[in-house]
Amino acid sequence: MPRIVVDVMPKPEILDPQGKAIAGALPRLGLTGFTGVRQGKRFELTVDGDVTEEVLEQARTAAATLLSNPVIEDVTRVEVIPEA
Amino acid sequence: MPRIVVDVMPKPEILDPQGKAIAGALPRLGLTGFTGVRQGKRFELTVDGDVTEEVLEQARTAAATLLSNPVIEDVTRVEVIPEA
Repeated sequence: MPRIVVDVMPKPEILDPQGKAIAGALPRLGLTGFTGVRQGKRFELTVDGDVTEEVLEQARTAAATLLSNPVIEDVTRVEVIPEA
Repeated sequence: MPRIVVDVMPKPEILDPQGKAIAGALPRLGLTGFTGVRQGKRFELTVDGDVTEEVLEQARTAAATLLSNPVIEDVTRVEVIPEA
């Protein structure tokens, strides 16, 4: 069944303590090629049937209201992914 | 600066209570086009300089050891994203 992926990331100006913790741990593992890490969320919505414009609009509504907090997060992607 | 994105999703056979909770909330918002939701994580690693094969290998190591728990999660993507 087709799936819609929604990516949600903390806004650039918002502190991201989880990302900071990961960025601090990387050098301790010998992984020194990175200057920063941001942690966000990725959702996969399984669609019942075809992905119509109406379903995509529902996914955008869900992304903006239920899946993200618009005060601190940005929805960076709402997109159909090819079937596996 | 270039960024590497790492996507981590719960394994298909693993229960995903956050996804289940979202799937239960969608119909209450009138969003009835979906049969299931899975919630995973999305990381953006900022690279200091060019993305060499060595840096990508470091990102794969980080994804497999620090960013995911291989018992319950799959790394579904380690990829350079174009500069904004």
